[in-house]
Amino acid sequence: MNFRARKTRASRAAKSAGVNALLLTHLPDVRYLCGFTGSNAALVLAGGKAVLFTDGRYTAQAKAEALGTRVAIAKKTALAAACEWMAETGVKRCGFDATQTTVAALESMRKSVPAKARRGMFVAVEPLVARLRQVKDADEIVKIRAAAKLGCRLFDGMLEYLRPGLTEREVAATLEHAARNAGAEAMSFATIVASGERSALPHGHASNAKLPKQGFITLDFGVVLDGYMSDMTRTVHMGKARPGLGGSQDLGERDVYDAVLEAQEAAVSAVAPGVIAGEVDEAARSVLRRAGLDGWFTHSTGHGVGLEIHEGPRLAAKQTQPLEPGMVITIEPGVYMPGRFGLRIEDMVLVTAKGHEVLTPSVKAWVEL
Amino acid sequence: MNFRARKTRASRAAKSAGVNALLLTHLPDVRYLCGFTGSNAALVLAGGKAVLFTDGRYTAQAKAEALGTRVAIAKKTALAAACEWMAETGVKRCGFDATQTTVAALESMRKSVPAKARRGMFVAVEPLVARLRQVKDADEIVKIRAAAKLGCRLFDGMLEYLRPGLTEREVAATLEHAARNAGAEAMSFATIVASGERSALPHGHASNAKLPKQGFITLDFGVVLDGYMSDMTRTVHMGKARPGLGGSQDLGERDVYDAVLEAQEAAVSAVAPGVIAGEVDEAARSVLRRAGLDGWFTHSTGHGVGLEIHEGPRLAAKQTQPLEPGMVITIEPGVYMPGRFGLRIEDMVLVTAKGHEVLTPSVKAWVEL
Repeated sequence: MNFRARKTRASRAAKSAGVNALLLTHLPDVRYLCGFTGSNAALVLAGGKAVLFTDGRYTAQAKAEALGTRVAIAKKTALAAACEWMAETGVKRCGFDATQTTVAALESMRKSVPAKARRGMFVAVEPLVARLRQVKDADEIVKIRAAAKLGCRLFDGMLEYLRPGLTEREVAATLEHAARNAGAEAMSFATIVASGERSALPHGHASNAKLPKQGFITLDFGVVLDGYMSDMTRTVHMGKARPGLGGSQDLGERDVYDAVLEAQEAAVSAVAPGVIAGEVDEAARSVLRRAGLDGWFTHSTGHGVGLEIHEGPRLAAKQTQPLEPGMVITIEPGVYMPGRFGLRIEDMVLVTAKGHEVLTPSVKAWVEL
Repeated sequence: MNFRARKTRASRAAKSAGVNALLLTHLPDVRYLCGFTGSNAALVLAGGKAVLFTDGRYTAQAKAEALGTRVAIAKKTALAAACEWMAETGVKRCGFDATQTTVAALESMRKSVPAKARRGMFVAVEPLVARLRQVKDADEIVKIRAAAKLGCRLFDGMLEYLRPGLTEREVAATLEHAARNAGAEAMSFATIVASGERSALPHGHASNAKLPKQGFITLDFGVVLDGYMSDMTRTVHMGKARPGLGGSQDLGERDVYDAVLEAQEAAVSAVAPGVIAGEVDEAARSVLRRAGLDGWFTHSTGHGVGLEIHEGPRLAAKQTQPLEPGMVITIEPGVYMPGRFGLRIEDMVLVTAKGHEVLTPSVKAWVEL
């Protein structure tokens, strides 16, 4: 990982934001900039230097992981030590991320520096490192690709395993066990298994409900490999698709599936550098609108993925951010009809120099088990 | 769950803190006070009323879970809607938890209310609900007891399963799979399996290292049942204990184990209502000091457990908080000798009216596998 280049980019962003130092306490930001994976850290970038403050539990680990960054073991808190060091070395204006700093933390930062240094020292700035992290470098793409590939392999295994009568919880347990055995450090989030009527819940955590003989099963899951996360959703059908109800809800299960798949593929096709995030959302939403289903598509189309499961950019209506090569995003439209059924289809997509590449090429065509 | 009583206690605490409303956004606090388990919430307690603000994804769930609390579906953010509602209903001073509110969130709270209401409206108060949550009520103790019991059952199963050559990751995978199949919603935290030299890492996440033919294996894990967490650690030994090295590090593996066990049991014995948290820490630390091992005991003795894995009280040196009946704490001294080995023994302990009760009665005597 080219931590030096990342630190240089962050320092440059800080300078543009009008501060001469940057204080990072959000752990994924710290890991991104210097490689440290411990649970307690404050990283300072100031005057071309980077100093990582942590505690005695992490002495050996910090030195091993944060190569090229000075490590300081704090006697009090890492945050207080970082602020004291800045005051001593004459930092005048230190930027901090207001979205990742609590009111109590800011108060303790202020108290850590002499009263005369305090005034104007801590300046709320935009989430500068989160912004940098949206565009993945080559090392990150290798890791994300590996996580996404493992996700696909696990899904393929599930196609052999799913059968009526298993509980959703057993399905999640089996999937997670296979993930662990394949080397996953953890799951990216609590595995979603939503079957039958429960498929109408966008975030139906695996319950004791049994997989039905006839109905949808939505699997939404991800694995963590070397810190980087995958995220994918597939919906399969047990037994034959049910026809529509007639009247205003005339669409059958297969019709709705096909509409969601068409929406998902339209949004994937729209992904390219320079395209506005809101346009990708609209690509999916307009397909569902034509099918009369947009009222049941109650969330946004996608989000960035990397060291965190939800990162920028956001792919939602009115989002004006243009996509850039190196961004890794999810495309995951869904339709949820309470009391009937629901489904979602989700891929991870890399924005490339010329267009896009789907990182989760598992089958998306209608599957009947 | 007696949510009404909890809300009443929280409102009373707010009044004592000099505010006439309380804004809660930390999800475990919200769940504790009204039962709602969704991922987006702002709960307001004001003038004897409780209103839960969330978004459209949670309409049905919020109404089902937060019985006895009014539910409002926010069009903008839940936080903004909560603040607007308070301004409209004439709340003058609203307390918020500075340890759970980001600088950016406070800024958006201020912007949500008219300029004339803004002045003095938002007042940082102590973590009042976190304080209430330290003392568990009867319903909570039932749930925590069930989670702790499941933890013990899983550990007993591991004693049958552990053998040299398994990777730490396989051990974690098997443990987590058994937990899921036994009904656990999730693990309380990333399972720690640290074997051989890696046992000297206090937080050694399961790696690809293989269990040795001779050496310690530390298992630290917990399960979530109905929102409540368990937490326990046991260290077992594969093969015969190694004798000491001679010289200043003269203690062998068995000697160190016995010292940690004695320290752990001394701290458990010290637990009773009215006892100061720091005294419990000292009970463990003094045993290790007499054995010349306190320099290797690099963390605190324990913490509260409940809806979160780390809650108050903190059992550490200089902590002056007295224990109260209903608190559930961990007692987990350990010794970590880098390059050699380490071990930790941890129980969950309930503070009772007259003393204490160990909730994790699995075997602690030396186990050789």
